[in-house]
Amino acid sequence: MDSTEFREFGKAAVDFIADYFDTIRDRDVLPSIKPGYLRPLVQSEVPQQGEKWQDILKDMDRVILPGITHWHSPNFHAYYPTANSYPAIVGEMMSAGLGVVGFNWIASPACTELEVVMMDWLGKLLELPKEFLNESEGPGGGVIQGSASEATLIGLLAAKERVVRRLMAGNSNMTESEIKGKLVAYSSDQSNSSVEKAGLIGSMIMRLLPSDDKGRLTGKILTEAIEKDKKSGLIPCYVIATLGTTPTCAFDDLQELGTICNEGDIWMHVDAAYAGAAFTCPEYRYLMKGVEMAESFNFNPHKWLLVNFDCSALWVKNAKYLVEAFNVERIYLQHKHTGVAPDYLHWQIPLGRKFRSLKIWFTMRTYGVEGIQKHIRGHIELAKYFESLVKQDERFEVTTSSLGLVCFRLHGDNNLTQLLHDKLNNNKKIFTVPCKFRNKFVIRFVITSRLTEHSDIDFAWKEITSLTEQIVSSPCLSKQKISHIQEMNSCEKVNGRVEKSK
Amino acid sequence: MDSTEFREFGKAAVDFIADYFDTIRDRDVLPSIKPGYLRPLVQSEVPQQGEKWQDILKDMDRVILPGITHWHSPNFHAYYPTANSYPAIVGEMMSAGLGVVGFNWIASPACTELEVVMMDWLGKLLELPKEFLNESEGPGGGVIQGSASEATLIGLLAAKERVVRRLMAGNSNMTESEIKGKLVAYSSDQSNSSVEKAGLIGSMIMRLLPSDDKGRLTGKILTEAIEKDKKSGLIPCYVIATLGTTPTCAFDDLQELGTICNEGDIWMHVDAAYAGAAFTCPEYRYLMKGVEMAESFNFNPHKWLLVNFDCSALWVKNAKYLVEAFNVERIYLQHKHTGVAPDYLHWQIPLGRKFRSLKIWFTMRTYGVEGIQKHIRGHIELAKYFESLVKQDERFEVTTSSLGLVCFRLHGDNNLTQLLHDKLNNNKKIFTVPCKFRNKFVIRFVITSRLTEHSDIDFAWKEITSLTEQIVSSPCLSKQKISHIQEMNSCEKVNGRVEKSK
Repeated sequence: MDSTEFREFGKAAVDFIADYFDTIRDRDVLPSIKPGYLRPLVQSEVPQQGEKWQDILKDMDRVILPGITHWHSPNFHAYYPTANSYPAIVGEMMSAGLGVVGFNWIASPACTELEVVMMDWLGKLLELPKEFLNESEGPGGGVIQGSASEATLIGLLAAKERVVRRLMAGNSNMTESEIKGKLVAYSSDQSNSSVEKAGLIGSMIMRLLPSDDKGRLTGKILTEAIEKDKKSGLIPCYVIATLGTTPTCAFDDLQELGTICNEGDIWMHVDAAYAGAAFTCPEYRYLMKGVEMAESFNFNPHKWLLVNFDCSALWVKNAKYLVEAFNVERIYLQHKHTGVAPDYLHWQIPLGRKFRSLKIWFTMRTYGVEGIQKHIRGHIELAKYFESLVKQDERFEVTTSSLGLVCFRLHGDNNLTQLLHDKLNNNKKIFTVPCKFRNKFVIRFVITSRLTEHSDIDFAWKEITSLTEQIVSSPCLSKQKISHIQEMNSCEKVNGRVEKSK
Repeated sequence: MDSTEFREFGKAAVDFIADYFDTIRDRDVLPSIKPGYLRPLVQSEVPQQGEKWQDILKDMDRVILPGITHWHSPNFHAYYPTANSYPAIVGEMMSAGLGVVGFNWIASPACTELEVVMMDWLGKLLELPKEFLNESEGPGGGVIQGSASEATLIGLLAAKERVVRRLMAGNSNMTESEIKGKLVAYSSDQSNSSVEKAGLIGSMIMRLLPSDDKGRLTGKILTEAIEKDKKSGLIPCYVIATLGTTPTCAFDDLQELGTICNEGDIWMHVDAAYAGAAFTCPEYRYLMKGVEMAESFNFNPHKWLLVNFDCSALWVKNAKYLVEAFNVERIYLQHKHTGVAPDYLHWQIPLGRKFRSLKIWFTMRTYGVEGIQKHIRGHIELAKYFESLVKQDERFEVTTSSLGLVCFRLHGDNNLTQLLHDKLNNNKKIFTVPCKFRNKFVIRFVITSRLTEHSDIDFAWKEITSLTEQIVSSPCLSKQKISHIQEMNSCEKVNGRVEKSK
């Protein structure tokens, strides 16, 4: 393919994407295919000769779109948002076009330097403590990671490094390996699955402590756990505080947890993956009070800040521990400016890295502070509107509501809500996922798409109430309930097994 | 920005990229800026109001291009190639446009299913053993990772899981934590820095064993190390064999290492990050003889196979160990097809994942087997041509030559070659990085760009010989040498320190 053909193909792809968004409401949010649908639609191996781009483009409609769950449909209310915006898409294109790999400064200075400045843009936009900024004096700074999972893991590894160094320097009579075997991390039972994964990967005991009735990890519970571990000779090392938990968007109290961590020389990492974007609006910053006691802070612009995946922002107060945990310098990685600008390869798990800061630059400049705040406030307002609709219907209860997430259920037995949830997803008009909170099965309803309007909320509510009618008026409800429970049980059994679509 | 503006901006970006490639030879491969150049060129924070896309696009020329190291310039001969092709760029655009996050099947079935098939396309293209394919019977399969670093780490974690399960089942009197504390991994001193990093992150002793005079890890050295560790009560767990080492593109003998691993129940992971792409050509497959004894195999289509970063292909013989090492299931991640199709979140470190298989699909279909083979063979032929030029000049020696990489030096003291290397990079016409191999300082010359032609090799060779003239004819060579050595020493001192561009 030469550049002339690329111009044609690329522009046709731009139109494909624009058309896709212009007509996104015409499609069911969930696809109507079964596992294994795709293999028969494509060749079984790489074709011998090259094909024309026109044929490839046609297959987007034939093969791909029928199997897409439309994350940017206004009817997508599952998980949390994954960001998408036009300027971010163009930023991604530019990054792919230049195709640089910026593992150190010389590998492409603009890639490192724009990232240094963009992390400061974001830090200031959220009004983070100055020690986190790259432009500050001192050893703190920000870096783009691929995901909150990586940020949590990196915090854990840096915390480990810090404790080991402190104890080794303090004439501890333990070996490095003995120290590492005694380290403990803490988070709440509401933290994201990636927290548990970080413990598995980084070989650190991870205690998922019980949260209170609002889904928060309290200082009392944390202190008790720390004291208990200390008595058993273990070494408290790392606390992951969550601002905006995955199930219900609950907020840990950073002032309470931070005080305990600072007194006990424990590294506090803040996981604000979704909710961090709300701190672009001053009225929500009270939720991160105490953030100055954190050693690291992470949120995902690729969730709620309109910057396409992947773009996870991590700040640390002292980058030394990252660099020392990761530095495996080789001669082919050295250059004459080594040590002058940050070589971000030592701030992350992989060696390679893309020019992701272009996406931030394009998106922030296109929207401006005002456009960003309008987006965040608009989503929260839509969630409030949905909440008001639920509250007006006495068959339902709102269990929690926080930022863009409303959790609700049908009064009565959990199975009723579970049945409603299944019906919603089977009907494919709106997409939600459930969670269990304090033994109640609830449906999470999240505003995710930048396209969502009041009429989309009305559409969703109409769908929910009309399927609720079916349940409430169903003559064979008990039978359905039973078969449903059986189905769920069998579903749990296959969980975790390795099976493949063949 | 609405879809009309996006159509304009997106198409202008396509033209920007095409123009960039059409004129790439007009630019020095290395930029002429100093650390910290960028900050004064951009605003210090997010602008209050949004800006026009035309102004953003203009800044690509003003702010970004002056700070780019041009990875796809035919004069880029550093590191190893990072892939870039027009169809892959369009694939990246489509992935950004659809913006799905495919962590499990229901999150976007097409994302999982195309990946399942594309990993089979690549596996067949390389003629990997059938057990690695998704379409095979049995528990093996392939998955896209972000980088070889992650693949090496995942192999390590899966190997750890396997040993722990085996020993716990075998009535070992050790606790899980005791077992984990005794595990050892092995690779050669020529392996990539990410191998050492995997040991650090995954908390496993990593022995970088001495390689032979061809840069290979031999069975004899590995066996000795294993025996020694066993005698000390340690547990050999994981071997990373390299096909195409980073310094010189040397190949470990998989038959020799694989036999030792299979006999000792040790997980052999094959890191073929760069060289794996050569196995698309039958004449190079002899280099991976013994691959059937590996438990996992990784290569990077984003290096030499024309698929833009990030796209690292990992196959495992038994995915059970991955899934068991990583599975931290939550109710919001379950769906009614759980267990039927692979939920790739359990095959990787992060939770989120992009629709990366689109890039493979677009690229393989555009080039076809014939186009891919032509690309690989063309690069190797250009390397041979460069080698012939070096060999014709008696001032030089070729120390190693393998696939698209030629390592060469000036006869005599290392400082001469070091001086030549510095001059090359200071002159910015071609970009190379050095390595030290068996105490010889050598310049690595790699064919990286898909645009490179014979005339570009002539250009590089002219540059090399003309700068060599300067060294050889210089009246103050000894003085230069001394100052150069001093500079290198001071450079080593700042290595690893955390400093930031301010």
